[in-house]
Amino acid sequence: MSAAKKLSIGWIGAGRMGYEMAARLARGGAEVLVWNRTKEKALPLTKYGAEVADEISELAARDIVFCMVSTWKDVKQVVTNLLKGKSKPKMVIECSSISLEGSAELRQILESRKIAYLAAPVSGNAKVIKAGKLTFVCSGPKKAFDLARPYLDLIAVNSSYVGEGELSRIVKICHNVFLGVVTQSLAEITVLAQKAGVPRHAFLAFINQSVMGSTFTRYKAPAFVNLDFKVTFTPQLLRKDMDLGLDAGRRFEVPMPLASATRDLIQSMIGQGWTEQDFATLLLQQAEMSGLKLKSENKEVSDGLS
Amino acid sequence: MSAAKKLSIGWIGAGRMGYEMAARLARGGAEVLVWNRTKEKALPLTKYGAEVADEISELAARDIVFCMVSTWKDVKQVVTNLLKGKSKPKMVIECSSISLEGSAELRQILESRKIAYLAAPVSGNAKVIKAGKLTFVCSGPKKAFDLARPYLDLIAVNSSYVGEGELSRIVKICHNVFLGVVTQSLAEITVLAQKAGVPRHAFLAFINQSVMGSTFTRYKAPAFVNLDFKVTFTPQLLRKDMDLGLDAGRRFEVPMPLASATRDLIQSMIGQGWTEQDFATLLLQQAEMSGLKLKSENKEVSDGLS
Amino acid sequence: MSAAKKLSIGWIGAGRMGYEMAARLARGGAEVLVWNRTKEKALPLTKYGAEVADEISELAARDIVFCMVSTWKDVKQVVTNLLKGKSKPKMVIECSSISLEGSAELRQILESRKIAYLAAPVSGNAKVIKAGKLTFVCSGPKKAFDLARPYLDLIAVNSSYVGEGELSRIVKICHNVFLGVVTQSLAEITVLAQKAGVPRHAFLAFINQSVMGSTFTRYKAPAFVNLDFKVTFTPQLLRKDMDLGLDAGRRFEVPMPLASATRDLIQSMIGQGWTEQDFATLLLQQAEMSGLKLKSENKEVSDGLS
Amino acid sequence: MSAAKKLSIGWIGAGRMGYEMAARLARGGAEVLVWNRTKEKALPLTKYGAEVADEISELAARDIVFCMVSTWKDVKQVVTNLLKGKSKPKMVIECSSISLEGSAELRQILESRKIAYLAAPVSGNAKVIKAGKLTFVCSGPKKAFDLARPYLDLIAVNSSYVGEGELSRIVKICHNVFLGVVTQSLAEITVLAQKAGVPRHAFLAFINQSVMGSTFTRYKAPAFVNLDFKVTFTPQLLRKDMDLGLDAGRRFEVPMPLASATRDLIQSMIGQGWTEQDFATLLLQQAEMSGLKLKSENKEVSDGLS
Repeated sequence: MSAAKKLSIGWIGAGRMGYEMAARLARGGAEVLVWNRTKEKALPLTKYGAEVADEISELAARDIVFCMVSTWKDVKQVVTNLLKGKSKPKMVIECSSISLEGSAELRQILESRKIAYLAAPVSGNAKVIKAGKLTFVCSGPKKAFDLARPYLDLIAVNSSYVGEGELSRIVKICHNVFLGVVTQSLAEITVLAQKAGVPRHAFLAFINQSVMGSTFTRYKAPAFVNLDFKVTFTPQLLRKDMDLGLDAGRRFEVPMPLASATRDLIQSMIGQGWTEQDFATLLLQQAEMSGLKLKSENKEVSDGLS
Repeated sequence: MSAAKKLSIGWIGAGRMGYEMAARLARGGAEVLVWNRTKEKALPLTKYGAEVADEISELAARDIVFCMVSTWKDVKQVVTNLLKGKSKPKMVIECSSISLEGSAELRQILESRKIAYLAAPVSGNAKVIKAGKLTFVCSGPKKAFDLARPYLDLIAVNSSYVGEGELSRIVKICHNVFLGVVTQSLAEITVLAQKAGVPRHAFLAFINQSVMGSTFTRYKAPAFVNLDFKVTFTPQLLRKDMDLGLDAGRRFEVPMPLASATRDLIQSMIGQGWTEQDFATLLLQQAEMSGLKLKSENKEVSDGLS
Repeated sequence: MSAAKKLSIGWIGAGRMGYEMAARLARGGAEVLVWNRTKEKALPLTKYGAEVADEISELAARDIVFCMVSTWKDVKQVVTNLLKGKSKPKMVIECSSISLEGSAELRQILESRKIAYLAAPVSGNAKVIKAGKLTFVCSGPKKAFDLARPYLDLIAVNSSYVGEGELSRIVKICHNVFLGVVTQSLAEITVLAQKAGVPRHAFLAFINQSVMGSTFTRYKAPAFVNLDFKVTFTPQLLRKDMDLGLDAGRRFEVPMPLASATRDLIQSMIGQGWTEQDFATLLLQQAEMSGLKLKSENKEVSDGLS
Repeated sequence: MSAAKKLSIGWIGAGRMGYEMAARLARGGAEVLVWNRTKEKALPLTKYGAEVADEISELAARDIVFCMVSTWKDVKQVVTNLLKGKSKPKMVIECSSISLEGSAELRQILESRKIAYLAAPVSGNAKVIKAGKLTFVCSGPKKAFDLARPYLDLIAVNSSYVGEGELSRIVKICHNVFLGVVTQSLAEITVLAQKAGVPRHAFLAFINQSVMGSTFTRYKAPAFVNLDFKVTFTPQLLRKDMDLGLDAGRRFEVPMPLASATRDLIQSMIGQGWTEQDFATLLLQQAEMSGLKLKSENKEVSDGLS
């Protein structure tokens, strides 16, 4: 990867996802300097050739700085700290799931300092990254995207450029709305098939191999079959994204009947107390509404990733 | 494929899908005798080593007879003709999209003649078969499935066994309900993204590469981007399958809010006159409800198959 | 009521509703002969001037025979028994909630015997009848309606003639679909108002006095305020009528999104075990989905009838 | 009305509704001084004994000032002008359809001046007022409500007190959400009945006389039967109120599936270009979705008011 060697990389955030992304970058041969609030969490990245910074300011001199933290509040704080000194990167690539408004504010901050800014949210979770199946959706100056591309390619299987400004944020919201609808529909048909006599593992094995199967439906199969609802994404976060989607629908005058119906079912799930587990408990609500008590099928089910 | 050579195969139906399925079987080394109402359509299969029968009765002496025609009426007629003489196959594998009731009637006919019967509908269309991505979902005696497996494997990338009787028919209906919901949701978010400023080809490129992308969303992309709505599946047929799904929901007391909402949107599309094109015109209805006139983007878009 | 005196009336069925209807007819001056499976239940009607028959055949010589029983099976049986002898009435008016198909079969039976037949389902319950607020919707020969009108007017505050054949049955189904939707919507807004701080009795007092208030919303107020869900109409019966409405929607190609959504919510209520009380427990389900435990407000609330 | 004579009344706003309300007040014997931006529109009120002011400041010395204008912006402006001088009323009763936030801001303004404030939106339109069927829903200090009651009673057939603060605004929003749902449901069943063979006037005559009939369904009948869609309330305004209802649903965590579905259908109607007529064009959209072209039935239909 000759191109990749030309630019130096700073990486902010070594949480569950940030860690895996930085690891792929380092293993791919990029020169990465990582900073994380809790330095210890970043240290294992050195085995892939990454360096770990004590202070975030050390990253300011890097060509490209990636940011993968939690909330807009975190993003704002780390970027402010990054830019406190005189040095500044050529480009910042922000991958966290932040709002359109936050993203626009960040663009203003960075562009006033003549730093190129790529809004680059992702599709996937930590396991998906590890399996090499993450994808980026990017917006901002096309030049910045082209420049960053070799590094994005080290992390993700694919990167889409969708246009100027914060457009990638809207695309990410649409993606999550789709995820909500697909999960609820899957819950409906899985419960129907089960009540008709088809075990969940057999039903989902077919769906996942069929033309309708996706990486997502495959990695949700263990949850649906064995009722393991360890949180990957909370019901409250999904509701927030559905609401962002419906808000965009209002602004752009797009009726979204399936998104609306799904949103209300997520609210209903929350109202009934399913708040501490993964949003895939939509299956449990669907079963209850169908007069069915679910049990784990205790089957080994592939998630298509590991 | 040593096992495959042991059993002789009869194939009824050389329509768009049946032709491709028989072709794969013959090319895979199976000994296939094909019958089609219009013999000419079957003749090109000889180049793959298949033979073509003049009379359907010639197939009766084969070990396994596959059936891939259009409607239950057709199925009933060809099976009746197949069994008119003294010979009879060991097994019939029925792959057409017929109802649960039809399938049960067929089972009775065949089992009274001591012929094993596998109900084996599929996921995919002619192009999917050609691309080697078809899948079977099968129900009936497990022994029959095991015996048939090597031949199914020549045709499809995967085959799922879901249980006794007509269970595979319910699974196929669930599959098609899911397909309807996914298409409507995709229409909602595609129109939203476009009104926000993201071209459809860019939006769908991302979705299709993301964890949410499926073989199905990929092969529908050309229709969504370039508005080519040549029929693969009519709105009326999709409505019929949604109704079969909702009927099953009634019988098994499973509320299906997303399926119901989608069903009504398909009905609305039909009511407004979109009846002669592919069901993917759900996109056009969604655009119209959003005050948007769509134009083809005239982009080359991969369907992920060819 | 001079006209009313001209024709003699037979009345089949002295259940909760039939009793009150026959009582109004007798008190209004009509000459009524009542038959009920359990004769004792009909006897109190003598205090209004009605006579009570031992055998249903005694009613056959009456000019008009009303029928108000439970199911189509009951209707068929009593009409068969009524017509066993040589005598026959000039007209039968059937008021039970039977299906379109049952009604059509009855029409054939009666018209082959040259007996005029009016299909005349009603809007209201026993209390509504007593309060003089029942209404009829009628279909069949217009002449029969005109002849029957004075007697309908003794029972009900109003009678609508909607056309030939079984049209009144469809209208009754539409009425009940509307009733389901209105109840669910009322549940949604009542729970919203309560969570915002408005007691249910105050909220419903306003709605019931507003332009949106109906006899129905008023007589459901006690249930909503004091959580008295003694059955007037079971969830299962309402689901049946919603399904009849949706079936008609399929036949006539009318998408009914609100009816569909309501139907699924009723199914969900049944799935969760609310089956033994009034369908107004839709309020309880709505509250549960909103994370709210309801308590009776113990307020005296008028039902607008008594 | 002895009590009414004790307090002097100021009235701001002589638009379609304000004019009729002030007229009832004056005819009922109250001492009313009216101000309207265009003085001429208020002058005919003198025939009922009202006086008309040149300047809004003349109303400041009145005991109670009612306000019935269009938007929150108008309300703010007239109240600011009213309070410019040293005089001030004892109470302001605000009847326009303003938001919760506007209402709260107004409360702060008035209470800081020690003026009692009653939030008092209404149910009905100009014709409803004239027919004596208007109702108020009020919130604020109970004392203020009790003091105002005799004057409210001159205008409206009923007034409900629902609690402190801006609660009446939420109730009005719930009322309008209900109105939207009821209209859509009525459109669904009216089109179904028509396709089954029942003329709209006959169908609605029954519904309106049935237990489901309300003042609202009755005054919408002429629009549904004769397709007169002169604006009483625009689709955009109804969408705004549905959105206020759904926003409240989000804030209080109440899923509102029927309100959501109706909201999307209103958006769809707007998207298809029905924006210049009454929101009752939901009927036209429903017909189009059902493959039906509607024609006026040219029937004289009572609206239950005139």
